[in-house]
Amino acid sequence: MSAIVSIPLWANLLAVGIGSLQGALFAAQFRDRRLDLLGVAIIGVATGFGGGILRDILLSEIPQALLSNWYLPVATASALIGMLLQRILTRIHALITALDALTIGLFGAIGTTTALALGLPAIPAVFVGAVSAVGGSILRDLLLNVPIALMQVGSLYAVAALVGAASLVALVAAGAAPWVGAVVCVVLTFTVRVLAVLFHWTLPEQRPLRRG
Amino acid sequence: MSAIVSIPLWANLLAVGIGSLQGALFAAQFRDRRLDLLGVAIIGVATGFGGGILRDILLSEIPQALLSNWYLPVATASALIGMLLQRILTRIHALITALDALTIGLFGAIGTTTALALGLPAIPAVFVGAVSAVGGSILRDLLLNVPIALMQVGSLYAVAALVGAASLVALVAAGAAPWVGAVVCVVLTFTVRVLAVLFHWTLPEQRPLRRG
Amino acid sequence: MSAIVSIPLWANLLAVGIGSLQGALFAAQFRDRRLDLLGVAIIGVATGFGGGILRDILLSEIPQALLSNWYLPVATASALIGMLLQRILTRIHALITALDALTIGLFGAIGTTTALALGLPAIPAVFVGAVSAVGGSILRDLLLNVPIALMQVGSLYAVAALVGAASLVALVAAGAAPWVGAVVCVVLTFTVRVLAVLFHWTLPEQRPLRRG
Repeated sequence: MSAIVSIPLWANLLAVGIGSLQGALFAAQFRDRRLDLLGVAIIGVATGFGGGILRDILLSEIPQALLSNWYLPVATASALIGMLLQRILTRIHALITALDALTIGLFGAIGTTTALALGLPAIPAVFVGAVSAVGGSILRDLLLNVPIALMQVGSLYAVAALVGAASLVALVAAGAAPWVGAVVCVVLTFTVRVLAVLFHWTLPEQRPLRRG
Repeated sequence: MSAIVSIPLWANLLAVGIGSLQGALFAAQFRDRRLDLLGVAIIGVATGFGGGILRDILLSEIPQALLSNWYLPVATASALIGMLLQRILTRIHALITALDALTIGLFGAIGTTTALALGLPAIPAVFVGAVSAVGGSILRDLLLNVPIALMQVGSLYAVAALVGAASLVALVAAGAAPWVGAVVCVVLTFTVRVLAVLFHWTLPEQRPLRRG
Repeated sequence: MSAIVSIPLWANLLAVGIGSLQGALFAAQFRDRRLDLLGVAIIGVATGFGGGILRDILLSEIPQALLSNWYLPVATASALIGMLLQRILTRIHALITALDALTIGLFGAIGTTTALALGLPAIPAVFVGAVSAVGGSILRDLLLNVPIALMQVGSLYAVAALVGAASLVALVAAGAAPWVGAVVCVVLTFTVRVLAVLFHWTLPEQRPLRRG
């Protein structure tokens, strides 16, 4: 079963590559983990298409990334490039944050439209879209055995994905063409995420109600 | 495919809500994790219907919780209520332990009967039932990056679920109506869990055979 | 859907048993985790057929291990034997490393041929084969909340599985009978793993490119 909005393979691979590169850069902070080259490749693959794999597992389908020979080599190569060039890449790190914001928007749009195409109701479709967008970063943190970054006070990573996916579902419910919803989803996710990073927007930390 | 024993939606949602509330109360102990509101919601969702999601993934079906608009809002709202009212809720914590024991009994009965309905043999059906019952608490601990509580010396949380699921399978094999098995499963799970908490029943800790 | 190469049930169970025993021996190092008997059994089950479960989840099928009453009791019993006899077993630990190398070869061959039989392309088939081989050890480390051993500088555990799976796919692509590929896969995985342990072969640790 395919998404309502079909994304060309090269765009998909580009998004996977950016995710994997990000994953390897993130892993580079943990020198004490003594990751070897294969460890870096595993983190890259998990970050790059872990979200898509979780999406397809939730939808009870064989993961899209396992139906083509392209995804695994692209993710592995991107992760190793990220590891080798980390000094250069951390200098252009604003660009990479921007590309990553685009990537989560794209993955969110693919996930949400796929879920709608399979007949899921509105709210689960938003959930599946958000999992597609940020699931890779959750898998990355699980495999590195560090606290899940996106659950902590931070810069609206998952919130951006939720806002984008919700806008897509609302637009489609209001009668818009799916591709319109998908474009709005990518733009909104990107905007919320980039503005949150620029202006340090965060969600409040967990806290109990205070008395009187 | 549906369970032999069908549980009304409101009972299901109540069980999910109690699970999510429990998850948020548990997460509140980890202030050093700096969870934000979304983090609390994610823990709530994972605890509340993580077991059901694992069950449906094992059974190769789209998770029940993604086929209705109700589960996600109920789980999210319960988690946030758990976070806000944690001072009151920890005072009625005996009641919450009791409700939770009911919840794992209910999830175990749903999981076990669903597995039997799909034609799984007896022992895997007990396994799927136990995973349905306690899988949410495993996901919760994985996401919080803390040791899995139910694998440690404690108060027969998973054992209660296993006893309940095994009694259900045995009764159905002996010719009882599935609803009878389900009721016995809920009652036994509840009883074993509550007695274990009251009387500090535990399983022995791992240890090697001693010589002579 | 079944693998091209069918492995007799007893061989499958033997491999699961060796994996579970290994898992319990590994868990025994972590006395501070305070695992109880059920915790040991869970680690055993996860190590013994976690890889097969991940394989079937990726392939969107009900896990093979849940279609028979044999797997769960064999895995649980092997884990408890591993726990009880750890003093004897660590003395014959060369034998256990060798048996485990055979086990990952066997799981890799089953996983790879199953993926090919379902029509997956070559590279994803290698990936699924490697996940089948080493997925149990990843699940074990996740559940124990320790860093994933196979991503760290070590003794070519996952590399051995990848080499074996790749050889199988290459041979089948070149027209060899699947059982020939499977035998070569087991032999190569075993050889690479055992030689790596004997001669301390490792992959390089992650590192950035150095300047000039």
